[in-house]
Amino acid sequence: MTTTPSRRRLRLGAFATAAGSNVAAWRHHATPSDAPVNLEHLKTIARTAEAGKLDYLFIADSAYITKDSTPYFLSRFEPLTILSALSAVTERIGLVGTFTTSYSEPFTTARQLASLDKLSGGRAGWNAVTSALEGLGRNHGQEKLMEHGLRYKLAEEYIEVVKGLWDSWEDDAFVRNKETGRYADLDKMHTLNYVGEFFKVQGPLNIERSPQGRPIVFQAGGSDEGKSLAAREADAIFSRHSDPKLAAEFAKDIRARARQFGRRPEEILIFPSITPIVGSTEEEALRRYEETSAYLDIDTAVKYLSRYFSFFDFGRYPLDEPLPELGEIGKDSFKSTAELYLKMAREEKLTLRQLALRASTPKGDFVGTPEQIADRIEQRFESGDIDGYIVSGHVQPEGIRDFVEQVVPILQKRGLFRTEYEADTLRGNLGLAYPDNRYKSERERQA
Amino acid sequence: MTTTPSRRRLRLGAFATAAGSNVAAWRHHATPSDAPVNLEHLKTIARTAEAGKLDYLFIADSAYITKDSTPYFLSRFEPLTILSALSAVTERIGLVGTFTTSYSEPFTTARQLASLDKLSGGRAGWNAVTSALEGLGRNHGQEKLMEHGLRYKLAEEYIEVVKGLWDSWEDDAFVRNKETGRYADLDKMHTLNYVGEFFKVQGPLNIERSPQGRPIVFQAGGSDEGKSLAAREADAIFSRHSDPKLAAEFAKDIRARARQFGRRPEEILIFPSITPIVGSTEEEALRRYEETSAYLDIDTAVKYLSRYFSFFDFGRYPLDEPLPELGEIGKDSFKSTAELYLKMAREEKLTLRQLALRASTPKGDFVGTPEQIADRIEQRFESGDIDGYIVSGHVQPEGIRDFVEQVVPILQKRGLFRTEYEADTLRGNLGLAYPDNRYKSERERQA
Repeated sequence: MTTTPSRRRLRLGAFATAAGSNVAAWRHHATPSDAPVNLEHLKTIARTAEAGKLDYLFIADSAYITKDSTPYFLSRFEPLTILSALSAVTERIGLVGTFTTSYSEPFTTARQLASLDKLSGGRAGWNAVTSALEGLGRNHGQEKLMEHGLRYKLAEEYIEVVKGLWDSWEDDAFVRNKETGRYADLDKMHTLNYVGEFFKVQGPLNIERSPQGRPIVFQAGGSDEGKSLAAREADAIFSRHSDPKLAAEFAKDIRARARQFGRRPEEILIFPSITPIVGSTEEEALRRYEETSAYLDIDTAVKYLSRYFSFFDFGRYPLDEPLPELGEIGKDSFKSTAELYLKMAREEKLTLRQLALRASTPKGDFVGTPEQIADRIEQRFESGDIDGYIVSGHVQPEGIRDFVEQVVPILQKRGLFRTEYEADTLRGNLGLAYPDNRYKSERERQA
Repeated sequence: MTTTPSRRRLRLGAFATAAGSNVAAWRHHATPSDAPVNLEHLKTIARTAEAGKLDYLFIADSAYITKDSTPYFLSRFEPLTILSALSAVTERIGLVGTFTTSYSEPFTTARQLASLDKLSGGRAGWNAVTSALEGLGRNHGQEKLMEHGLRYKLAEEYIEVVKGLWDSWEDDAFVRNKETGRYADLDKMHTLNYVGEFFKVQGPLNIERSPQGRPIVFQAGGSDEGKSLAAREADAIFSRHSDPKLAAEFAKDIRARARQFGRRPEEILIFPSITPIVGSTEEEALRRYEETSAYLDIDTAVKYLSRYFSFFDFGRYPLDEPLPELGEIGKDSFKSTAELYLKMAREEKLTLRQLALRASTPKGDFVGTPEQIADRIEQRFESGDIDGYIVSGHVQPEGIRDFVEQVVPILQKRGLFRTEYEADTLRGNLGLAYPDNRYKSERERQA
């Protein structure tokens, strides 16, 4: 492997899966069993990732539960509250959270995220998603899940409104001169007056811009609509593809779409997710994976799988036969994930048991010694058209700690990854350009 | 003054007005001019209040601004984000914030507040308000302000839904037995299935109860509807009445209403607000008040007043003549505050200038030496039917610091106020009873 510095900068995020990406992780001896509602535990993950100079911490979300939900979903912190709390006990790491566009008010989302952004000194990120579970709608007075395409149309308008509100104040609008008594230059306050198909929002927002201008917009959709939305609106994308060929295809697709929207393809950062499992030998790493997976019972595994198929009741199907025909199930819900699972089952002729275990105890290609993991990270980064990884832990905080203590130093030695943060903001560390306020540009064009 | 311990416990909150309750406070030399978006400043207020063993910190809110808004309103942290951040850097003080029932989803509010409650170890409080500014509606796709009475009907239903969702899980529902793999007792998970006039909400909430069971509900309405709502739903009330006679009338009214709703009157804590201004002599205290007030220009003062009258344009009226006839202006907006100002103007024959200055540089009866202020606090507490005070600072953090360092020790010496927190939760410190989960009680009745 090369030891010369790479010209491209590797970026790394940390997926703060509370107990771990392995559904059985909560039973592991080194994990607090109440991890998703344990502030100290999440502080440890955040500070460990920050010690490793990772770009950001990512808090996923989901708010609909049933008696069939697996442990991780039943009781967890809401992303805005936990990210705000972590902003007060970290200094440099980015704070990214999932907030839905389906059952919320764009003014409130714009305001809460801008507030987190200002609180954290310009470290906030928004993973804008549409909600895929009909049950969540029933928590908000809606009986039927909005059709997949419509959900994305609404999301696009929603993001436009939010970005518009984030330009309510120009960067230098607040004067705050104690001598003269002039507090703000009101010519630099702007009222959006948005009228669209789904939203009518006046503005302005009652909070100024942060040092990074506005939060970083992430997107994670893998469907046709999701990819178009991401290519048009996102600064960064989470990609579920761990397979290098699929990951490369995904990146190519995204960058082509970005070009169609008049964007430079490199304006969008693509982060496939990986789950490194470190051992002193490859065998030890595998043993650690198996140790955790052994805690999983098949009933929980099948319930976990069913969530991606609108809580389809797999219970009456035989575990050791091929997956039943599912017809339209899941097509309006977690569309791309459901498709991925079905494809996997079809191509590898998996039984229900095999697919359920595969989904709930993900292993991936990053199981081995620190050197082996660093090699694979470098090789895929150099050959694939991606910008970095979002790193999950199969068991937390062990997973992120092993990665930071054992793999990051190798990446740093190879010149692939930073040894110190370059900037104070998430945008600066990601190397993304500062977004000028739209009204400032207008003024400059007119001048 | 007596030095024997009082039988009733005095409770104290700290109103975290960022720069101070004086509209001109931001120009004061000892205040950061960006106070409402300055995390360090708000940390200082929170930690000072905690050092003084105060019961809670209170963050007010408002989200509609115009070019006529005064400095405090233009750019500020959103309450959930700042309270969550402060939860990570404080240990015992309660964290209370204003969240509207008018333009939000009860499921989301219930979830975010429950999350703050769990994050902070049972220290959250919710000041449930209805939104009084038509402009805020225009930020949420609504053209017309909802009529005052209807707003309160909706608020009542909203609070019922939120409280219902806060009972989604019984206290001991989460088992988390690593050996057996049993995570939760799903018989202790409850689905609300609320169907009302305004809301239809299924549940359950995906977060467990905190050590105080559920957040403390505050209310601040002074209108007939507001008082009924508070008497029915609130654990605690902010009262704007600094006049002791009005404060006593208000308390009597609230407790009578509470009885009508089948509650014990002492279940509701009443907190009038005070703004102590401390000096080594009464003259020095007055001088400090005047020093800050001198920064205020009359234009800003009139704009501040106009906010309570739906941004009525007072600009064309003469400053030194009696207040113009306002007709119906303000009656659907900040109803009780507007009435209070009009009553004040009528009774004291105030000109527009005088009323505007009175509103924006509130002085009150707590200006003097620490002993004088402590005397007045004790005397009103002993004679009026109130439970404590919410303490504002005319200039922050000076106001809260002076109060904690100079007045609190006197109250402690007199046995009126705690020298150490009695409990870890806000509920425990306020001395309010733990609210049993409704389903647990059902089960016990059936058994």
